[in-house]
Amino acid sequence: MTAADRLAALRAALRQAGVDGFLVPRADEHLGEYVPPSGERLSWLCGFTGSAGMAVVLDDNAALFTDGRYTTQAQQQLDPTLWELRHIIEQPAVDWLKQHARGRRIGYDPWLHPDAALKRLEPAGVTLVPLPTNPLDAVWADRPAPPMAAAIPHPLQYAGTTAAEKRAAAAQALREAGEDAAILADSHSLAWLFNIRGGDLPHTPLVLGFGLLRADASAELFLDPGKVPAETRAHLGNQVTVRPREALAAALQSLAGKTVRVDPEATPAWFAETLRAAGAHIAAGDDPVRLPRACKNQVEQDGARAAHRRDAVALARFLAWFAKAAPAARETEMSAADRLLAFRREVPLFQAESFPAISGAGEHGAIIHYRATEESDRLIRPDECYLIDSGGQFLDGTTDVTRTLWTGPGPAPAGLRARYTRVLQGHIALATLRFPQGVAGPHLDAFARRALWEVGLDYDHGTGHGVGSFLSVHEGPAAFSRAAKPVPLAPGMILSDEPGYYLPGQYGIRIENLLLVREAAQRPDQVKPFLEFETLTLAPYERALIDPALLAPAERGWIDAYQARVLAEVAPACDPATAAWLRVACAPLGDPA
Amino acid sequence: MTAADRLAALRAALRQAGVDGFLVPRADEHLGEYVPPSGERLSWLCGFTGSAGMAVVLDDNAALFTDGRYTTQAQQQLDPTLWELRHIIEQPAVDWLKQHARGRRIGYDPWLHPDAALKRLEPAGVTLVPLPTNPLDAVWADRPAPPMAAAIPHPLQYAGTTAAEKRAAAAQALREAGEDAAILADSHSLAWLFNIRGGDLPHTPLVLGFGLLRADASAELFLDPGKVPAETRAHLGNQVTVRPREALAAALQSLAGKTVRVDPEATPAWFAETLRAAGAHIAAGDDPVRLPRACKNQVEQDGARAAHRRDAVALARFLAWFAKAAPAARETEMSAADRLLAFRREVPLFQAESFPAISGAGEHGAIIHYRATEESDRLIRPDECYLIDSGGQFLDGTTDVTRTLWTGPGPAPAGLRARYTRVLQGHIALATLRFPQGVAGPHLDAFARRALWEVGLDYDHGTGHGVGSFLSVHEGPAAFSRAAKPVPLAPGMILSDEPGYYLPGQYGIRIENLLLVREAAQRPDQVKPFLEFETLTLAPYERALIDPALLAPAERGWIDAYQARVLAEVAPACDPATAAWLRVACAPLGDPA
Repeated sequence: MTAADRLAALRAALRQAGVDGFLVPRADEHLGEYVPPSGERLSWLCGFTGSAGMAVVLDDNAALFTDGRYTTQAQQQLDPTLWELRHIIEQPAVDWLKQHARGRRIGYDPWLHPDAALKRLEPAGVTLVPLPTNPLDAVWADRPAPPMAAAIPHPLQYAGTTAAEKRAAAAQALREAGEDAAILADSHSLAWLFNIRGGDLPHTPLVLGFGLLRADASAELFLDPGKVPAETRAHLGNQVTVRPREALAAALQSLAGKTVRVDPEATPAWFAETLRAAGAHIAAGDDPVRLPRACKNQVEQDGARAAHRRDAVALARFLAWFAKAAPAARETEMSAADRLLAFRREVPLFQAESFPAISGAGEHGAIIHYRATEESDRLIRPDECYLIDSGGQFLDGTTDVTRTLWTGPGPAPAGLRARYTRVLQGHIALATLRFPQGVAGPHLDAFARRALWEVGLDYDHGTGHGVGSFLSVHEGPAAFSRAAKPVPLAPGMILSDEPGYYLPGQYGIRIENLLLVREAAQRPDQVKPFLEFETLTLAPYERALIDPALLAPAERGWIDAYQARVLAEVAPACDPATAAWLRVACAPLGDPA
Repeated sequence: MTAADRLAALRAALRQAGVDGFLVPRADEHLGEYVPPSGERLSWLCGFTGSAGMAVVLDDNAALFTDGRYTTQAQQQLDPTLWELRHIIEQPAVDWLKQHARGRRIGYDPWLHPDAALKRLEPAGVTLVPLPTNPLDAVWADRPAPPMAAAIPHPLQYAGTTAAEKRAAAAQALREAGEDAAILADSHSLAWLFNIRGGDLPHTPLVLGFGLLRADASAELFLDPGKVPAETRAHLGNQVTVRPREALAAALQSLAGKTVRVDPEATPAWFAETLRAAGAHIAAGDDPVRLPRACKNQVEQDGARAAHRRDAVALARFLAWFAKAAPAARETEMSAADRLLAFRREVPLFQAESFPAISGAGEHGAIIHYRATEESDRLIRPDECYLIDSGGQFLDGTTDVTRTLWTGPGPAPAGLRARYTRVLQGHIALATLRFPQGVAGPHLDAFARRALWEVGLDYDHGTGHGVGSFLSVHEGPAAFSRAAKPVPLAPGMILSDEPGYYLPGQYGIRIENLLLVREAAQRPDQVKPFLEFETLTLAPYERALIDPALLAPAERGWIDAYQARVLAEVAPACDPATAAWLRVACAPLGDPA
């Protein structure tokens, strides 16, 4: 089937369903960033494989909405005769629907959209119609089967808190709010709350399913019982019942008269619709597990530090290897990424990449979420930029790191060095902040941009995202992003600090470390708690791209201290050749001439 | 009547009205910051005179909610045996109601609360009951009469755009949104849209009233026709009808079947309730005039520059006078403020103070919105801090400026100088930002705090507010505040930049200039429009409180350039003695020893 065939088949199904259009989000019913092949509806329909987007299909018209990270990629993947491409923030679906579909009936699958997302479409003036079955599924003939990986216990030595303690705390929060139960629609919450991990997705160790937590701390898990081996059942204990997904509707029906917390941003609309029909009272509120999950406990924090120190050895081996291999110009984007993965595979407790590595040479670095494929893969050439954004899932923590390298052997152009240095200044400005409790990511994002803003430059993505503990590399609720909800930063949160600069067709720069939020030491006359960041990631910056003359003395001092720390913490665990390379890479920048 | 008598009388009236409690906001039906004596319900009830707050009265309990600016003042003004004082953000009314009044009937006057504010109380689980008459008004025996000042035309030479053009543009926006009419509940919008000014409030030249704008650009103004003299009627033209306030209900009834825009944040709930009952369709949306009003046109921008240059002469005279008078220790907070007002009165086009000047010596400077009274007034002593925050209403613009001074003759302590210098660094960091379109005040507020945050200090107020054009000194929608809605900054907006630091019982520091948002010059590879600030306020900083050794070279350079500009623009308009003082005050800081 061609893209045109698929669109035509869907349109026929829509006519049969009695609607004038249909929404096809990237998300599956778990509303996460990654979806298994069985949930890749958007990619099946239009070919777009980015991690964020939504298609709107009308009878005579169709549009894909995605963000700045994916504009270039979407242009390459979409058939422009079938699809209009729009910026999801600047030209949102609500405006497009208002223009093209006002007054018409637009269908949606209530499993694939949270209530809040549907509400944002209300001003379009269309009639949104929940469809009992998904018309796209009806025409998707070769749809893969859903994943069936086993749920396995996540040991206490990494989790730090028992599942029973976590359930008790979450249940107490429900009781304090006067609520009888909460829907757990987020598989990350299931993994964290029950101390289980799975293999339903390639990069995030999730068990896809749904849960119901009751105010007495008992819980039900709705997923194929075949995914739960006896060991895991024993681990879950007597207060947790595993039931098949088909039992969900009946379980919700039994909540008539009860007050049930539903997170309107993170729960398929189907839940609220079903609960309402059952006569339950819906209390709109945050997933009760989301904030506790984001605030890593001491064991998880120690695990993150340990995982980063071990991951740093693989990174150092890769960087040392790259410095030698790059000028020879025999490596490609894919072979380099494979090499890094091979080094990571030798790291204890490594499980998988935390996302598909972004390995982009020259102009490919400017594609923010570039993924090298057999078709796009190219030689990494001398005297160009190379961007490598990658991470690992370890049993004790999740890593995510980006370095932008200069292949040499010649010197980097002054303009490129100036821009790399400005990106680095933003990265440092954020990492060195101290701020009072109550401040949220959207209030700090601009610090990472100011050095670029000064010269009229910017980057079209957030500065950083939360990171899980052997969970998703993109974890809510906190983020360094103007578009994010202002959730106050709190001790134990881990976020990325990754400003960038992208010159389309030429190069991309991104520098990323993970930061752990911690309490700052008390100062004279300080009257409220202050927080600061501990940098977790340990890898040298690219000396060939730094212009020390552009840095303030405090910035040079910070870089020198950071690189001295990298050398001290990482070199002892490296082979002699890597350690020798680290000594050179981590030497002080010295005073600018 | 004592405060206890008033509370008891209100409680009796509540019992009669059949409710268990009542909300008493600071606002009157115009929901503005300033209210005429006839609307000072909160102050009548509990004695609190701050400009933001709400009381909740239950049968057995009463609480006042206000923000950090007013904590100290509220502690002084409230009877603690009658009133519990709570922080409006950290301990909000919704939590207090949930704790003390869950399930009970809480009355409110639908004229005094916007819909959005009532909605934020929903999670409290109380039943909110709109009362047809205000029970407080029933027991407020000596309530003053409402103000009756005349509405006068605001000449085109200051307004820059005719009222007819403004109405046409706003009406077009309604038509584009598919709306038939908009409620104009904000008297600032009336003043701007109709190019009228009035005298109903002491510091803001408003005509208090309501308006209805229709999509055909015709409009109705609802206010006492006795306030509109013939000249103003002629100025309003044929498309604008003046009707008495009592005609409002009937006018809304006539909108049955129409789509009417109502700003849920800025319109008394009475409007939506009445429109809904009349069968009108309510389109929740921003006051159509709010954003155009905030973006000053070229004439208003030129007016603001001219008003600031003239105001600067009064400021320079005051500062020169103060430098001489302060060591003699014969002036008080009130006499100093009177002196500044006397200098302002000599400035052409001066109409009134834009707010009651905050003139605080020593420990009074730490009371963020201090107002010297006969009781609190005290001598300004040698060797202490003195904070003066004041502004003027001129026909061509509104000013607002704060300077913190050292009285001498001795040197200021190093710790105080360090903190003044950090406040100044924050003030400069914000003033020197360049940023892309789309960035809003909440994203920039932290730049003004970073130098303080570095040493564990902060201030408990927003960094800046919008300022009108011969209108309110506090104007929405943009603000440098984490608590504000993120409204993108746009060319022509005027905002204050006023970080501070307050050490209770000792001193307060605040430094305030007004900034005009303008387009920034294009830079290489810049792919989107950037904005920057033009500093409008012209007054030297306090050299005795600056520690040049703490400043970066770029910061020293900025201060020197700013003060050179003050000298060049202001001194020629001053008397010789003031000009001589300015030359010394504005001399370069010089390199630190």
